[in-house]
Amino acid sequence: MPPQAAGVRLADLQRPVAPLLDAVADELRRIIAADFPLIAEVNGHLLRMKGKLFRPMLMFLSNRAALADDVRLLRFAAIIEVTHLATLVHDDSVDHSALRRGMPTLNALYSHQVSVIMGDYLYSRAIIELVAVDDLEPLRILSRVTNEMTVGEMRQLAAYDALRFTEEEYGFLIRAKTASLFSAACELGALRAAPARRAALRAYGDALGMAFQITDDLLDYTEGEAVTGKPSGLDLKEHKVTLPLIAALPRLAPAERREVEALFAEQAPGSAPVARVIELVARSGGLEYARQRAEAYAATAEAALEELPPSLERDALRDAITYAVERRS
Amino acid sequence: MPPQAAGVRLADLQRPVAPLLDAVADELRRIIAADFPLIAEVNGHLLRMKGKLFRPMLMFLSNRAALADDVRLLRFAAIIEVTHLATLVHDDSVDHSALRRGMPTLNALYSHQVSVIMGDYLYSRAIIELVAVDDLEPLRILSRVTNEMTVGEMRQLAAYDALRFTEEEYGFLIRAKTASLFSAACELGALRAAPARRAALRAYGDALGMAFQITDDLLDYTEGEAVTGKPSGLDLKEHKVTLPLIAALPRLAPAERREVEALFAEQAPGSAPVARVIELVARSGGLEYARQRAEAYAATAEAALEELPPSLERDALRDAITYAVERRS
Repeated sequence: MPPQAAGVRLADLQRPVAPLLDAVADELRRIIAADFPLIAEVNGHLLRMKGKLFRPMLMFLSNRAALADDVRLLRFAAIIEVTHLATLVHDDSVDHSALRRGMPTLNALYSHQVSVIMGDYLYSRAIIELVAVDDLEPLRILSRVTNEMTVGEMRQLAAYDALRFTEEEYGFLIRAKTASLFSAACELGALRAAPARRAALRAYGDALGMAFQITDDLLDYTEGEAVTGKPSGLDLKEHKVTLPLIAALPRLAPAERREVEALFAEQAPGSAPVARVIELVARSGGLEYARQRAEAYAATAEAALEELPPSLERDALRDAITYAVERRS
Repeated sequence: MPPQAAGVRLADLQRPVAPLLDAVADELRRIIAADFPLIAEVNGHLLRMKGKLFRPMLMFLSNRAALADDVRLLRFAAIIEVTHLATLVHDDSVDHSALRRGMPTLNALYSHQVSVIMGDYLYSRAIIELVAVDDLEPLRILSRVTNEMTVGEMRQLAAYDALRFTEEEYGFLIRAKTASLFSAACELGALRAAPARRAALRAYGDALGMAFQITDDLLDYTEGEAVTGKPSGLDLKEHKVTLPLIAALPRLAPAERREVEALFAEQAPGSAPVARVIELVARSGGLEYARQRAEAYAATAEAALEELPPSLERDALRDAITYAVERRS
C-alpha cells in the first residue's frame, strides 16, 4: 500500500470530485421537491442531515477512473443518494432508532407513520427520476439492489436465535445492507465504460462495501462514543451479532460462552456485561479475525482496480479502501 | 342505464375474463416468490388474503374493450396487484389496522417491522418485473401513481384539523388513494390501443375510482357490520372526515355542529355520539350530496366509454360503474 495511504481523510478522497459533490445537494433537492407543506418540511430536515455523500463520491471517482463520459452522472448520483436516504428512513423506523448522523430521526421527530410514508415517497421519486433518464439499465441495477436490501433487512429481523448466526449469513446480510449499494454506485458511474472496466468497478464496490461494513461493526467494539457518536457496544446491547462475536464464539470456554448467553438473555443489558463480552471477544481473537476479513476484502477491492488505467481518480479509489478499513468513525 | 344494470354482482363483471383472473394468482406467486423462509411464509399469508382482483379485472376488460392485443397483459395485471398489495401492507402499518379482508394484517400477525420491510419487498419486486418487460411506458405510469399515493397518504396524515378538511382536499385524497391506481390499471390494459381509446380508458378509470371511493365512504355511514365486515361509523370513530360529513357541516345548526366537535374532541368516541352524528349527517343531506357526487363521476365514467366500440367487455365496464355505486359492501 502506498505510504500516503495511512491516515487518509475523507476530504482527500473527495477533492478530485469536490465541485460535483457540491452540485449533488441541488440535484437532490430538485428530485425530492414537493408542494405539500409537510413533505417539504420533512425534506428540509433530511437535506440538513445530509451525510458524507460517500456513494455519490464513489460514483464520480469510478466514472472518471473508467474514462466513461456520461452526462447523466449528476442525476444518477442524486438518485443513489435518494435511494440511500429512503432505506435509512425505513431502517430507522424498523429499528425504532432515535438518532441518525447526530440528528433526530423522522420517527423520533415526527412519527412512525411519517417515516413509512416518507420512505415510500423517496423511493418512488427515485424511480420516477430513473424512468426519466430513459434507459432501463440503471433501473435494472437499482431495482435489483433495493430488492436485495429488503431481503437483507428481513434476514436480520428473522435472526432471532442470534448466537447461531453464521459467518455466511453475516456475509449475506452486509452484502445486502451495504455492499450492494456501494457496488451499484460504482457500476452506475461506469455504465458507459468498456464492459471490463464496468465489471471491475462493480467488483471493487462490492469488496469495498464488505470491508467498510465489517470495519463499521468492528468500530462498535473498539471505539467509544466520543469518536463514533454512538456508545460503544451498542450492537451487543441491542443483541446484534456481528463478525467479531461470530468469530469469537467457537473459541470461548464454556463458562465464557455462558456469559455471552446471559447478556443475550437480558432484555436491556447494562454496561458491565457488555464491557465483559467485548473483552472476551477481543481476548479470543474475534476482533483480529474480523480485521483480517476486512483486509482480505480490501485486497480484493485493490486488485479490481488493476483493470483501470492509472489516474488521480484511481488513486482516490485506492485511498478510499484505506479509509474504509482504517477510519475510526 | 340498461335495465340489467341494477343488482350487478361482481361475478357478472368477472365472467368475460374469468380464465385470465384465475391465471393472475400464479403470476402473482411467481413475481413475489422468495427463497428466504420468513418472506415465503408472509407471501403465503398475502396470497391467501387475495382480494377481489378488481384492478386486474378492470385491466383485462379495458384491454379487450379497446381491442389492444398485448401479450404482456397477465404480467401487468399481476404487477398492479402486487403494487396494490404493497400499498395495503404499508397502509395497515401506518394505520395500525388489525384486520384486512377479514384476516389479520401483517402488523397484527407479525410486527410493524415485518410490514415495513415486506411492503418495500413487494414494491421492489413489482419494479424488477416492470423493468423485465423492457418498456419504459408502464414504468412511467406506475411510478407516477405510486408517488401520488404516498403524497395522498401524507395529506391524510397531515389533516390534523379534521373538521376544516375541504371537499377539494377530499377529492385530491381519494384520487391519490384509489382513482389513480384504477386509472393506471385501465390505461395499462390499453397501452397498445389507439391513443384516443387509451385516453378514454384512463379517464374512465379515474372517474370510476372516484365514484368507487365516495361510495366506500358512504357505506361507512349507511351499512352495518353484518354487510361490510366493518362496524358502521368506523371512519367517525377514527376521526376520518369524508364527503358526507364535509357536505353536512356547513348545513348544521350551531348546536349540532358542537355535537360533531364534541365527537372529534373525544379520544375514543362511543357508539351513541357516532350514531347521533350519522343521523345529523343524514338529516342535513350529507349522504344525499355524496351520492350525487358519486353519480356524477359515474356519468363521467360512462361517457368515457363512448369512445370504445360496442362489445361484451364494454358492457362489463359499464356494469362495473353500476357495481361501484350500488354495491352494499
